[in-house]
Amino acid sequence: MPNVSLRGDMMPSSPIRKLVPYAEQAKKRGVKVYHLNIGQPDIVTPKLIMDAVRNCNITILEYSHSAGFESYREKLTAYYKHLSIDVTKNQIIVTTGGSEAIQFAMMSCLDPHDEIIIPEPFYANYNGFAVAAQIKIVPITSSIEDGFKLPPIEDFERNITPRTKAIMICNPNNPTGYLYSAQEMEVLRDICLKHNLFLFSDEAYKEFCYDNQQHISAMHLKGLENHVILMDTISKRYSACGGRIGAFITKNAEVYDTAMKFAQARLSPPTFAQIAGEAAIDLPADYFEEVKVEYVKRRDLLVKRLNQIPGVFCPNPGGAFYAMAKLPVESAEDFCQWL
Amino acid sequence: MPNVSLRGDMMPSSPIRKLVPYAEQAKKRGVKVYHLNIGQPDIVTPKLIMDAVRNCNITILEYSHSAGFESYREKLTAYYKHLSIDVTKNQIIVTTGGSEAIQFAMMSCLDPHDEIIIPEPFYANYNGFAVAAQIKIVPITSSIEDGFKLPPIEDFERNITPRTKAIMICNPNNPTGYLYSAQEMEVLRDICLKHNLFLFSDEAYKEFCYDNQQHISAMHLKGLENHVILMDTISKRYSACGGRIGAFITKNAEVYDTAMKFAQARLSPPTFAQIAGEAAIDLPADYFEEVKVEYVKRRDLLVKRLNQIPGVFCPNPGGAFYAMAKLPVESAEDFCQWL
Repeated sequence: MPNVSLRGDMMPSSPIRKLVPYAEQAKKRGVKVYHLNIGQPDIVTPKLIMDAVRNCNITILEYSHSAGFESYREKLTAYYKHLSIDVTKNQIIVTTGGSEAIQFAMMSCLDPHDEIIIPEPFYANYNGFAVAAQIKIVPITSSIEDGFKLPPIEDFERNITPRTKAIMICNPNNPTGYLYSAQEMEVLRDICLKHNLFLFSDEAYKEFCYDNQQHISAMHLKGLENHVILMDTISKRYSACGGRIGAFITKNAEVYDTAMKFAQARLSPPTFAQIAGEAAIDLPADYFEEVKVEYVKRRDLLVKRLNQIPGVFCPNPGGAFYAMAKLPVESAEDFCQWL
Repeated sequence: MPNVSLRGDMMPSSPIRKLVPYAEQAKKRGVKVYHLNIGQPDIVTPKLIMDAVRNCNITILEYSHSAGFESYREKLTAYYKHLSIDVTKNQIIVTTGGSEAIQFAMMSCLDPHDEIIIPEPFYANYNGFAVAAQIKIVPITSSIEDGFKLPPIEDFERNITPRTKAIMICNPNNPTGYLYSAQEMEVLRDICLKHNLFLFSDEAYKEFCYDNQQHISAMHLKGLENHVILMDTISKRYSACGGRIGAFITKNAEVYDTAMKFAQARLSPPTFAQIAGEAAIDLPADYFEEVKVEYVKRRDLLVKRLNQIPGVFCPNPGGAFYAMAKLPVESAEDFCQWL
């Protein structure tokens, strides 16, 4: 019997999946389980989006353009313009979820054994994509004590090697909820320019910034245009995770053309969810305001009550819909199992 | 400005895309262009499928299971049973198109620099997936003179090295239309057993076999159960290319668990097209008969008329909806441009 690959062996299991058997056992005992481990919003998907799919008028369910429907990319430029991000439809590749945008970025910009610096804690699946692409993630630890702000510039400098090709951030951050400030984004710009690095910016949660804070996109950074890849998704924005539609965006023409070759190999992103994504751009301007009111209400309750527990510390997340707490436990995994 | 990766540089462009500017110029001159270069069926997508999506009753468009809906996998087992393929729902991973199934197979079974033997001509995008996975395709040439039958066993033996991990076939073949016989499949089984190789079997066109020939699936081969990965898709089967739903199927539990880790990293396959795929299994038994009548009619006309042209030879494809012809031209690419 032939063996699986070493890469397959090294591929990490989902840290969430490990907990599923415990949750299932508890449910069998009649325990009500609140799943705190997965970024699946319970906000209703806007009816406008679902209706666009329900009313679709398709005779032959054809491949779309490998970069996604031209009409969708055209409308996306207006959506981004509203966020002060100036891109053309030929700088956008519609992807199969944000996941595929991350894979295109890693494959297009890094070779096996190349390194990418990522502040940790970071989204667990970056590890999987890195193993698939055979690249090395160099983590730089951020600290719960200061709410997971950007680690000091020296920590980046110390970890840059001739193989370092990129810095990657998630802003607002999954899983810390930290929102990078304009000043921190400028630090990232300067270091990317100084060391000629790409900046991969996962902005899946950019609509969800609280307390009147402004989201600073990597695309806003002057002088860094040829270094930035914006990785986006409709999953969290419109509570449409199952659609599997995201976007890979860059002003670097060489990177764009390279990513397009990966996009062409897999033919096209899913058609139905492109229809959903295109319709979503017509949502009323106050749509996100309503959702944010709900998320802020939950955050405020959660953070307040967590911090009332002796020995617990939970910084106030500035964005996204995650919170990380320091708990008086020996092992987070044991604690999750006990929960 | 940072550079793209070597891998990105090596990534092949779509051979089809190169021709697009010529087609567009011709169209501008008022020429009617028949696109002979792309596997996009013009058969209408069954209304049953489209209606299933149109009538979907979804409030929150959630992630599905990383292996795909349990209900869909359950129904797929009945679909495969009908084709004398015995698999359980836990041997199926629903993928984002057949493309993703190919990538999961390559990543799960081969490490960078490992080799995979593929009879050529083969589906052009295998090259792209191989570059992405950093593996090496070792082509073995089949010949138009004998209709692209399986190359002799000696050609395989000669090309097997310590790095050879798999043989890959597409059956019926894209782009030759060749349908492998039971005897040829047994040759492949024997060589895979002898050299402990995986057999990757792309069976995207398995419903389209003509002249009362039987499709022999790699899954039918006795004793090869732990070596076979079946890569499937609804794209051609139901004229549903835009859905982006395929399947990765194996009885090898270790390979399955490994591929599941790649599947978990990308979260889930697209929900809407899973609904379409699930509905498709309820199509009446004569659905494929009707489509085959149409494809055979076209094949017969095309092959007959091509062979009537002096200097042209076109073998009769036994399956799929492609035909390859030997033409009295110096360069196929020049000829395509002239067309």
